[in-house]
Amino acid sequence: MYQFLDGIQSPQDVKRLTFSELSVLAAEIRKYLIESVAKTGGHLASNLGVVELTLALFKTLDLPNDSIIWDVGHQSYVHKLLTGRREQFDSLRKFGGLSGFPKSSESIYDAYNTGHSSTSISAALGMTRASDILGENRRAVAVIGDGALTGGMAFEALNDAGTYNKNFIVILNDNEMSIAKNVGGLSRYLTQLRVKPAYSKLKSELSKGISQVPYVGKPVLGGLKKVKDAFRQLLTQSTVFDDLGFTYLGPIDGHDLPFLCQILVRAQSISGPVLIHIKTKKGKGYKFAEDKPTAFHGVGVFEVETGESGKGGENYSKVLGRCLTDIATRDNRICAVVAAMPDGTGLGQFGKSFPDRFFDVGIAEQHAVTFAAGLAKKGLKPVVALYSSFLQRAYDQVLHDVCLQNLPVVFCVDRAGLVGEDGETHQGVFDMAFLSHMPNMTVLSPANFTEFTEMLNYATNEHNGPIAIRYPRGSVHYDYNGLPFTLGQPDVVSEGSEVCLLSAGHMLQTAMEARKILVNEGVSATVVNLRTLSPLKQDVICKLCGNHKLVVTLEDGVMQGGIGQQVLSLVPNGTQVLIKAHKNGIVPHGSLEQLYKMCGLDAETIAKEIIERIREEK
Amino acid sequence: MYQFLDGIQSPQDVKRLTFSELSVLAAEIRKYLIESVAKTGGHLASNLGVVELTLALFKTLDLPNDSIIWDVGHQSYVHKLLTGRREQFDSLRKFGGLSGFPKSSESIYDAYNTGHSSTSISAALGMTRASDILGENRRAVAVIGDGALTGGMAFEALNDAGTYNKNFIVILNDNEMSIAKNVGGLSRYLTQLRVKPAYSKLKSELSKGISQVPYVGKPVLGGLKKVKDAFRQLLTQSTVFDDLGFTYLGPIDGHDLPFLCQILVRAQSISGPVLIHIKTKKGKGYKFAEDKPTAFHGVGVFEVETGESGKGGENYSKVLGRCLTDIATRDNRICAVVAAMPDGTGLGQFGKSFPDRFFDVGIAEQHAVTFAAGLAKKGLKPVVALYSSFLQRAYDQVLHDVCLQNLPVVFCVDRAGLVGEDGETHQGVFDMAFLSHMPNMTVLSPANFTEFTEMLNYATNEHNGPIAIRYPRGSVHYDYNGLPFTLGQPDVVSEGSEVCLLSAGHMLQTAMEARKILVNEGVSATVVNLRTLSPLKQDVICKLCGNHKLVVTLEDGVMQGGIGQQVLSLVPNGTQVLIKAHKNGIVPHGSLEQLYKMCGLDAETIAKEIIERIREEK
Repeated sequence: MYQFLDGIQSPQDVKRLTFSELSVLAAEIRKYLIESVAKTGGHLASNLGVVELTLALFKTLDLPNDSIIWDVGHQSYVHKLLTGRREQFDSLRKFGGLSGFPKSSESIYDAYNTGHSSTSISAALGMTRASDILGENRRAVAVIGDGALTGGMAFEALNDAGTYNKNFIVILNDNEMSIAKNVGGLSRYLTQLRVKPAYSKLKSELSKGISQVPYVGKPVLGGLKKVKDAFRQLLTQSTVFDDLGFTYLGPIDGHDLPFLCQILVRAQSISGPVLIHIKTKKGKGYKFAEDKPTAFHGVGVFEVETGESGKGGENYSKVLGRCLTDIATRDNRICAVVAAMPDGTGLGQFGKSFPDRFFDVGIAEQHAVTFAAGLAKKGLKPVVALYSSFLQRAYDQVLHDVCLQNLPVVFCVDRAGLVGEDGETHQGVFDMAFLSHMPNMTVLSPANFTEFTEMLNYATNEHNGPIAIRYPRGSVHYDYNGLPFTLGQPDVVSEGSEVCLLSAGHMLQTAMEARKILVNEGVSATVVNLRTLSPLKQDVICKLCGNHKLVVTLEDGVMQGGIGQQVLSLVPNGTQVLIKAHKNGIVPHGSLEQLYKMCGLDAETIAKEIIERIREEK
Repeated sequence: MYQFLDGIQSPQDVKRLTFSELSVLAAEIRKYLIESVAKTGGHLASNLGVVELTLALFKTLDLPNDSIIWDVGHQSYVHKLLTGRREQFDSLRKFGGLSGFPKSSESIYDAYNTGHSSTSISAALGMTRASDILGENRRAVAVIGDGALTGGMAFEALNDAGTYNKNFIVILNDNEMSIAKNVGGLSRYLTQLRVKPAYSKLKSELSKGISQVPYVGKPVLGGLKKVKDAFRQLLTQSTVFDDLGFTYLGPIDGHDLPFLCQILVRAQSISGPVLIHIKTKKGKGYKFAEDKPTAFHGVGVFEVETGESGKGGENYSKVLGRCLTDIATRDNRICAVVAAMPDGTGLGQFGKSFPDRFFDVGIAEQHAVTFAAGLAKKGLKPVVALYSSFLQRAYDQVLHDVCLQNLPVVFCVDRAGLVGEDGETHQGVFDMAFLSHMPNMTVLSPANFTEFTEMLNYATNEHNGPIAIRYPRGSVHYDYNGLPFTLGQPDVVSEGSEVCLLSAGHMLQTAMEARKILVNEGVSATVVNLRTLSPLKQDVICKLCGNHKLVVTLEDGVMQGGIGQQVLSLVPNGTQVLIKAHKNGIVPHGSLEQLYKMCGLDAETIAKEIIERIREEK
């Protein structure tokens, strides 16, 4: 079907092709990616942007002796396609199929697992230092986007690498975007660099002096110093990266494959750390993705011809956007803080309505939280909206800056619980465990959109101190006419006598399904929507559980440190408690249905276990 | 006693003094600090370094309408002395006394609580943005050291502040040190800036053009643009800070008070963010502290005349240093990673013995952990030594990079449990709760130095996967002839029949004291040294607890998500369990003895509660 792509099983196959053949291959890869991701969904725009970069790295590195560390990792599809995984590509992000991120378990070419932003330079530097210590000659190249570069740990790594005295290559893949448009002083600075004339000067210089040198293979040692000096002189001024100790090369057209290869070979001959700044276009080669890179960052199934995908119905993020905009209209102390996710968190419209009270701080969760603490300290009511798995980055700031000072910051913890296709690095299963041990912190979780709205109103209007509302990706909800939300007050959704199911947040839907099965089996079950997850009040819990033979807790989070263990420590000694939670925090990718089943958190499994426990007791 | 210090109760009193009077005051402050800290212990060198800076800020800002955010905060003694707290100074860091860090609860002049590094710019920016939104005219100035500037969140904040379009001042207090000598590319860069001629040029320029302008009060609006341009032109080249969007002013002699004041007033007239780079000397004015700033960073009681303090006996950090050096002699895959604490962690000597396998990455816990993951991924055995409360910064990296990839990184969690005088921001009471819910993580804790050595040998030689060893500050230990360490195998230290005390780590000493009291009261107690804290094996725990009327768990960490709750979820239904842990994660400063008593974790309280529970049951 494809002239060249069909023949590629490994980097060696890429190395064999000429530049004109590679140019055809690049087009084939783009065509394949667009058609394939249209069917599976996934990250499209970022992968279309790194086709030439991936080919250049494959051509100039010695893989898998050398390593490529793809920061975040959702731009690794091209890499996967070229390392023998094309036949599995229709299983991408499906249960048991290919992961959407690098996974050492999939391939020897996946050198290091990524998922969260800004880890690549640290990991690559560690691998490089290891190679030194072991006396090996292995290279680890970090590829990091301009968005990920705003994450503080990337700077920590640049600072450390800046004094490393051997060759170490960081590639800055600058597409002027994180998921949304990139923000901050560094981004503005990179924009200045992007228009520097270095590229053309560098190119003509190189084509004169270096074109005879083969671009694969080790350059002659004697020339190293001279090459380095020449490179430095090409640069009109010292950059931030030079100041930190790096040799800056760029900006380079990231879609000019022959030149990219030349630069990569040259860069390997420089002693000390090198930063290669390449300019790429997110979505390159697919009009709809070039025009709307944010929409095509992570995408569901779509039509190749039109770029149209299903709109998707209501979800918690949209409710947050509408509700918070509404609240902010009435209360001018409300502000919102996001970390490079204005749209993902549903707050894009809020930002347009209240530009002075909306802060997108870039991929910088730590700063986001302490910045919000500063806002709160001076009397504002900041709402920080982050995905559960990214809130992990700000563990210390939530604890040290917000909780110890007991500041009224509202955390909207989006994508809490399983997220499905993004897999283990993105599952939001730890937030309950880590938030519930923080002093002064209150944690709520809604079972439906109405409750979510009530909780948002409560958190922004009435609550005094740190508060988090955790809610899932998508639209899982169970609608019913419950009592108005009151802090600390659970809602009994269904009264029964034998079993008392204490359900956290969106698990109410599962709890009610399990109840239906139990009723059919002749087991009478009370179902409680906890609403306030932490702290739990002993008297309230004991009153709910009393007169039942079995108490069952149901939560979409890890068991250790979770709600079930908390309940167990509150109920009277001798109470039978069955804790349903994630026994293992590592949950792979797949559909939510498959994953909940795998984790034993589907209604059937829960009902079955309850019936077994009830019969044991009898 | 003191000519000027005696009369200072507030910033207004400082404002009234002339520069020559302030110069006498500065000397008085130094004398007072040296004599006072000699008696109480505390942070000396950093405070001696900021005497003039503090006076300059008091003189030029409108406190408490304006705010000073002291990064880390241990350099706030001068600030405290000048804001009406001198009479309490002999209670510094004592139970119920003055905190060694800024505390809003102590004074309206303490604008924001700090303790952990690198938070000040984020907090100050949040406070400044809040002032904008509220239409107030309040300034928040961040004072950050060159050490703290290497923490990634400081960079995240600089990046965000870089596009702020109103005045915002960050003061870089550059003393070329974190606690130890500062490291990395940024530090090297600052050293270059320090020798720039800007200071003298700037000074002469200013003395010509601006000396008539009063240094307190708002400058004339019309001159703003000109002043700004003049300032910019004084600088010979664009700095990293300019590149990020700041106006860089410096380097300035941080001990030249009149000039500092001039600069601070001028800086207030610049629109957009300003970074003032001041050079200070840690320990300034006390020879012993100037010569050994690391020794006088945090110090115990010492002799003013000689600078001598008690040497201190054996402690866990020293054992780590010796033991790891020993292991590394035999095993060349052992490396050590620290975050600006080579001596505090006891690894200074290791670094000298194995410079190629020792990595001080600066105040950069996130990078430290992911860097170690990179080392481990390539076959090395990295040991990351961090204080418990600072490990919080790397929560996501431990989870995402080490645990999800199941990499063999050894975490030496120093200062785990209460630390005493540093107070709430430094108490190491959360690590158990957050490490124990991370997949693949094993947590050990020794009761004495011998066990610690055995655990280190096990972790570095035999264990496969992430492992943490938590141990306290100082030397709390209980020596006995125990069984050799085996993973998952607790050691029964004392056999009894009624009560089974499961003790975690150094709490064994307390457990054995409690046992003595119990025996005197006729209660027979088994005491178990758990050693492996997580994961706990159900069969092992059940076997230990069986045949006892009451199981008591004893841990120096928060209750929620801790060992006690884990034990409760493992023992047979109906087992009586008393969980002794910290009910509240906020523990103030004081002596360890006072704090354990306050938290109900002293032997007397524990024994008393046990006896009550036993009698209730009877």
